[in-house]
Amino acid sequence: MADVLSGFPEWLPEEELFQRRLIDTVRQQFELHGFTPLQTRSIELATDLVGEGGDTDKEIYGVHRLAAEPTPDAKLALHFDLTVPFARYVVERRSALTFPFRRYQIQQAWRGERPQLGRYREFMQADADVIASGTMDVRFDREMVALLRTTLDVLPIPRVKLLLNNRKLLEGFYRGLGIEDIIGTLRIVDKIAKIGPKAVEERLVARGLSAHQAERCVAITTVEIRGDEDAARVKELGVEHPLLTEGLSELLFVLGAAKDAARPDSIVGALSIARGLDYYTGTVVEGVFEEHPQLSAVCSGGRYDNLASGKTKEPLPGVGVSIGISRIMGYCAHLGLLKQERPRRSPAVVYVLVHADTEREASELVARTLRRRGIAALVSDSSAAYGKQIRAANQLGVPYIWFPARGDGPHEVKDLVSAQQEPADPATWSPAPVSPS
Amino acid sequence: MADVLSGFPEWLPEEELFQRRLIDTVRQQFELHGFTPLQTRSIELATDLVGEGGDTDKEIYGVHRLAAEPTPDAKLALHFDLTVPFARYVVERRSALTFPFRRYQIQQAWRGERPQLGRYREFMQADADVIASGTMDVRFDREMVALLRTTLDVLPIPRVKLLLNNRKLLEGFYRGLGIEDIIGTLRIVDKIAKIGPKAVEERLVARGLSAHQAERCVAITTVEIRGDEDAARVKELGVEHPLLTEGLSELLFVLGAAKDAARPDSIVGALSIARGLDYYTGTVVEGVFEEHPQLSAVCSGGRYDNLASGKTKEPLPGVGVSIGISRIMGYCAHLGLLKQERPRRSPAVVYVLVHADTEREASELVARTLRRRGIAALVSDSSAAYGKQIRAANQLGVPYIWFPARGDGPHEVKDLVSAQQEPADPATWSPAPVSPS
Repeated sequence: MADVLSGFPEWLPEEELFQRRLIDTVRQQFELHGFTPLQTRSIELATDLVGEGGDTDKEIYGVHRLAAEPTPDAKLALHFDLTVPFARYVVERRSALTFPFRRYQIQQAWRGERPQLGRYREFMQADADVIASGTMDVRFDREMVALLRTTLDVLPIPRVKLLLNNRKLLEGFYRGLGIEDIIGTLRIVDKIAKIGPKAVEERLVARGLSAHQAERCVAITTVEIRGDEDAARVKELGVEHPLLTEGLSELLFVLGAAKDAARPDSIVGALSIARGLDYYTGTVVEGVFEEHPQLSAVCSGGRYDNLASGKTKEPLPGVGVSIGISRIMGYCAHLGLLKQERPRRSPAVVYVLVHADTEREASELVARTLRRRGIAALVSDSSAAYGKQIRAANQLGVPYIWFPARGDGPHEVKDLVSAQQEPADPATWSPAPVSPS
Repeated sequence: MADVLSGFPEWLPEEELFQRRLIDTVRQQFELHGFTPLQTRSIELATDLVGEGGDTDKEIYGVHRLAAEPTPDAKLALHFDLTVPFARYVVERRSALTFPFRRYQIQQAWRGERPQLGRYREFMQADADVIASGTMDVRFDREMVALLRTTLDVLPIPRVKLLLNNRKLLEGFYRGLGIEDIIGTLRIVDKIAKIGPKAVEERLVARGLSAHQAERCVAITTVEIRGDEDAARVKELGVEHPLLTEGLSELLFVLGAAKDAARPDSIVGALSIARGLDYYTGTVVEGVFEEHPQLSAVCSGGRYDNLASGKTKEPLPGVGVSIGISRIMGYCAHLGLLKQERPRRSPAVVYVLVHADTEREASELVARTLRRRGIAALVSDSSAAYGKQIRAANQLGVPYIWFPARGDGPHEVKDLVSAQQEPADPATWSPAPVSPS
């Protein structure tokens, strides 16, 4: 797929069918877990977006009517994620909602940043969040990590490893070291996978940290936690702060989600994970393709206690996860995973041949009968020689072709993959069950 | 639902679940008919949009980076429908596509026009189109009308009547009358339902038509055609032109779709239908709620022979239909059709109670077992008295509550509507099949 407008991906039919499978699978898991579908408007008041996204401000797209003069203080803008709009929605409709409120949202979002592999200016995300009224136990954080884990496990994509951390743990560690500029420090540390530990240390010092503080900030990023026994490794770093203790305890609890996972080692505590957005206040999580560590996170999430609460008296803490559908598509395309030997380019299961234009109605009737029984069917657009029609079916990757009955003969159906052909009745025939691959 | 930003609708969970049902039903029908899913980018080059939409130019939203200075010659814009982007997509990727190319697309579109009942600035449409390479028989027009008819018939909405016309018929009629300004005349006639026949006649005269021409232009709008026998009514108007004859013959052919419809009188030829967009070249169709004729069309479509062809040598004629999901939502809300006695606010089918926080794991296990069997389950967020937990389930409209086994006792499940309660095993229990309503 070559994007004609850089950063605005569009897929070919065979690729889009794969994307639909991703989306449908995610949606099914989210609904099985009781998350209700929601769609927020794509356009927000710019003032509601600027500031909430931390350093994404400069990437926001404003919207103006072409007919009107664009003004520098443009009022409307496209959302850059689905969390900020969701929080706004919940605050506006809190009296009509039942809390804790679990919703999922699969939509486009827009950021004007430089396009690169898997990073687009228009991209699709699949988010699930729960927002509570008042307080929210760390149990919800574990629920969301478990939901993310379960969902990733059934997607037809490379294995994903979930990396967990906790903002309180990092903030407590920084405060214990005497660092005041928490967000500034987090943002630099967040770049460690990209720029390496040495550059992080240098930038921290340039920002005013002492050599010791900077060294410790890098040291903690090397700690991995797989269970309670690893907690000692944090204490060995020689920093103490009540927030650090609280964050570590929360992290160990959320890591408990690993025990129900299909592969318990697919969820680990990784104290290098910071996440760029400044609204996170506790748990943070991201997921990377286990065997392709050079690729950025394909999913992420975390706890945000104050995002929805700013304007109201009762706090509305939330925790959510986000699966980067477009990013996964980009990576899968890059890794050659979207290529198939016989690409499916149509949802049709049966391609009904047409013997002659005068007999088209008989073929249409077969298709209508199949469709009424839930079997997707296309009627050949041509009444050329069967060989030519079958080539068209093959081009679309339709698995079965249907030979309509002629005279007193039976209908016949042919499996284009096995090449088996047999008599069939449109009122009773069914395709062989497809094994999930 | 009160829109906080006028023209940008957002729905409550119980309304959104209805919208999802609309979308899923449409999608299922489109796929049964062999249309493949597609998503085009929301953002187009402004130059690709301006001009294609006829008089919608002034309603287009431009897009600019907030960080950059907005310029009057803004390069990017949000699409105002799904047909123009689809045509652009097909032209760009024609060598990778198989023709005739059938796709459906369910996406948002944006128009900066004044919001009113069912008319939004951000709205969702469900489009199905087929584009051929070279020529395209009028058979495709009939296929699309039949698809639209079948799809509308299974949607949980008021009955829709489809009104058909043909641009060639109207253009031939106008030319036969000696009228040159076809598009200008069409656009005025298109307003007849809104402003009435007298105002149309006046505006036509003001635009330079003779009193006789204007009178005939209004006269033809009163003609209804239900079958070949009504064709004489067009001839009685005393105008002749080869395009008129061709258009009438096409209209009669496409009306043939009525014979396979569940209600044959749900598709009629209505020569008042013009459609505002200037890219239509033959068949035009729109659908209105039969018992609410004061409401505007909820679906529309038509044949466009030149939309995708402009830039290439080989013509790419197309024909498509569009179902206005947001408009249907707005009308259904207005008609009070979204109100339910016991609104469903969650996709969960089972709400698993929690006896005590120390026994939460047992409830989680029930939920996991049900989910693995495809049954959506929520675990109660509280371990308060059962009565309070059941109230929470009722608020979400979840149909079943689950009492986890205690001691040696069995699990029990209660149907909250019938109030029947019975022992159940999470590994085998299934909810009663829901009758489609």
